[in-house]
Amino acid sequence: MTRPSAHVDAARLWSRHLSLARHGATAAGGVNRQALSSEEIAARRELLAIARALDLTAFTDAAGNFFLRMEGRESDLPPVLTGSHIDSQPTGGRFDGVYGVLAGIEAIEALRMACITPRRPIEVVAWMNEEGSRFAPGMMGSAAYAGAAALDPMLSITDAAGVTVGRELARMRDAFPDVPLRPLGRPLAAYLEAHIEQGPVLEQVGCSVGVVTGIQGKRTFRVTVAGEEAHAGTAPLATRKDALLAATAIIQGLSKALADPDDIVKFTVGRIEVLPNAPSVVAGRAVFSIDLRHPDSARLRALGDAIENLCAEQGRPCGVEVRELTTAMSLDFPPAIRDLLRDCAAAIGIRTLDLPSAAGHDARFMHAVCPSGMIFVPCKGGISHNEAESATASELADGARVLVDALLSLALR
Amino acid sequence: MTRPSAHVDAARLWSRHLSLARHGATAAGGVNRQALSSEEIAARRELLAIARALDLTAFTDAAGNFFLRMEGRESDLPPVLTGSHIDSQPTGGRFDGVYGVLAGIEAIEALRMACITPRRPIEVVAWMNEEGSRFAPGMMGSAAYAGAAALDPMLSITDAAGVTVGRELARMRDAFPDVPLRPLGRPLAAYLEAHIEQGPVLEQVGCSVGVVTGIQGKRTFRVTVAGEEAHAGTAPLATRKDALLAATAIIQGLSKALADPDDIVKFTVGRIEVLPNAPSVVAGRAVFSIDLRHPDSARLRALGDAIENLCAEQGRPCGVEVRELTTAMSLDFPPAIRDLLRDCAAAIGIRTLDLPSAAGHDARFMHAVCPSGMIFVPCKGGISHNEAESATASELADGARVLVDALLSLALR
Repeated sequence: MTRPSAHVDAARLWSRHLSLARHGATAAGGVNRQALSSEEIAARRELLAIARALDLTAFTDAAGNFFLRMEGRESDLPPVLTGSHIDSQPTGGRFDGVYGVLAGIEAIEALRMACITPRRPIEVVAWMNEEGSRFAPGMMGSAAYAGAAALDPMLSITDAAGVTVGRELARMRDAFPDVPLRPLGRPLAAYLEAHIEQGPVLEQVGCSVGVVTGIQGKRTFRVTVAGEEAHAGTAPLATRKDALLAATAIIQGLSKALADPDDIVKFTVGRIEVLPNAPSVVAGRAVFSIDLRHPDSARLRALGDAIENLCAEQGRPCGVEVRELTTAMSLDFPPAIRDLLRDCAAAIGIRTLDLPSAAGHDARFMHAVCPSGMIFVPCKGGISHNEAESATASELADGARVLVDALLSLALR
Repeated sequence: MTRPSAHVDAARLWSRHLSLARHGATAAGGVNRQALSSEEIAARRELLAIARALDLTAFTDAAGNFFLRMEGRESDLPPVLTGSHIDSQPTGGRFDGVYGVLAGIEAIEALRMACITPRRPIEVVAWMNEEGSRFAPGMMGSAAYAGAAALDPMLSITDAAGVTVGRELARMRDAFPDVPLRPLGRPLAAYLEAHIEQGPVLEQVGCSVGVVTGIQGKRTFRVTVAGEEAHAGTAPLATRKDALLAATAIIQGLSKALADPDDIVKFTVGRIEVLPNAPSVVAGRAVFSIDLRHPDSARLRALGDAIENLCAEQGRPCGVEVRELTTAMSLDFPPAIRDLLRDCAAAIGIRTLDLPSAAGHDARFMHAVCPSGMIFVPCKGGISHNEAESATASELADGARVLVDALLSLALR
């Protein structure tokens, strides 16, 4: 039997990336296709058209995840799942997430061209709200699927305009009346996710495919600083409770306290909202995010646990409330999956590198459900979550080649 | 002749404040009635009804200022003008600005009750966009009237939703088709503005009326920090250009460099906007406001001139651009006007205190047009630009009493 990877078509896979990037295209060449937006609906419609031409069946679930199923010879067996997400950051790129979904579709197309029907069904998934930029936190769809978080409390989470996840899920369902609903958490045989690296390592060492060893841990927090509004021209500085000034002191204090000469600790404040946010009013309230990551779970625990006290000290005389939003410790993917990916690559002459994922992915939650693993491909300069995100057609195709051979191997078991 | 101040009615003046506060009322008892909003249109409609009952004529001008005119015996003479503004901060109070307009109307009502027609006309004005929170900078209407700034460039200034001043001025005019348009910058005999102090001094010394000696200078800036978007989990901290982190370093650096043990320098950052403002994206851009005030013009000049270098130093490795938006040096009102206000108060047994204004007011621009002055009344705890802003009916009335006697004196000259 020919390996299905021989049928992966780099030009086809590339042109599908360009085509999907039209939905939410930004002037700077990036993508703004946030979770459950009209742009995401349009992108799913395009995926559906490709899937129907490949004779796949579409399904969804209560969390708004989107599945495209290739039937296996034994359709009652738990399927092998692959995919990622098609939602983006507000100023995101054309490859983050999308690649995992399109590589999955390319894998199925290669199987069709090779006239192979695997024993198990193979499904491609686009998870709901991986990015977490419109609705926080991210990875909602995979978390709900894996039972790591209950769906119900997610439904009332709102975006900046006050629109709820629940309302937008209903809108997404209404957009696809012919796509039936399946229960959450159906059993899976295995899960593979292909993704751009979002870091510079593969490009630097000159490997087109990375075998991901695991995912570094991440804790996220929301810090609320309570001050007191006052007139910028008249209120004495000695008696002010300036929430914006206190927030900047906290952020600078945390940045110094978490400084790491080895550059392993990743500390980011990406979002701040101030009230009333007027130039001549001392701010009464400031709310900001903290994103803290470290590959060592014990170290991540210790660093994260110190945050609340640091905030309270630096925030005086304002009141400070720190709430942890998500806690995800570091994890390692099973060696058997990593070996399989490495072997599939070696068999077709693709050199791989083992490397950890510094970013979080839906594979984090699937890891708790079934044997899971990830494939990385390089992205230019390691730049991601940025409109300048870039990748090459041939490297994207190499990742899809390893993916399809590994999927087939898992689906024959 | 009875002094018209004998006809000032504290209860009437108070109830008009409560009634006007319905337009844009907030749940916390404050007011959100931003410039040229539907709430301001509703409030002007209410003023117009009061004015018509007092036989006043309404006018507007190309800058959207709103005038209510009491005819004098010699209607061709330049009028005496009084007033302030009825727009508010997003979470403003019930007295800031409104008091000056309602005290002017109360003065005219007292003149009517005393059956006095002064030699010169007396007009009450509500200036357009004093606050500058919806459309920056503030004091647009008085600046345009005084010729301190050209109207034309103001028209294309947008609010956060992208709506222009020009569009909203047209909407305001359409709301009052019967109010005729007069040219900007008509000659004035004098200008008096009554306002709450927005500071704690009058309350502390127990005076119901303050004679304002002058207005402290103010310089405002917009600082733009240009960084580079990156992934919060993967981008090495050593190579990041984090615009939000740089902005917090600049704000902390400025706060330390401008620290003043005598608490005379007023330095405020009230507004910050971050892009893309997402928790797991290193910020690519941050824009914040600086409001810097000092009563001594030379000191204000020196402090403000140091800002650009301080920003550039603290903002590295990001690029920083500092743009000065408004420059207003400190000013002193003419002694003749201050003497008049003091004498009018003394004649009716009201004790006054001379004090400077720490906040900016429309009187700043009128000062360049005609002899101008200001009356302050206490506000509770000095709290302003805050929904908790509070004042007493009897102190508001004392201010109106001094105002009407002084207006009459000026209008008889």
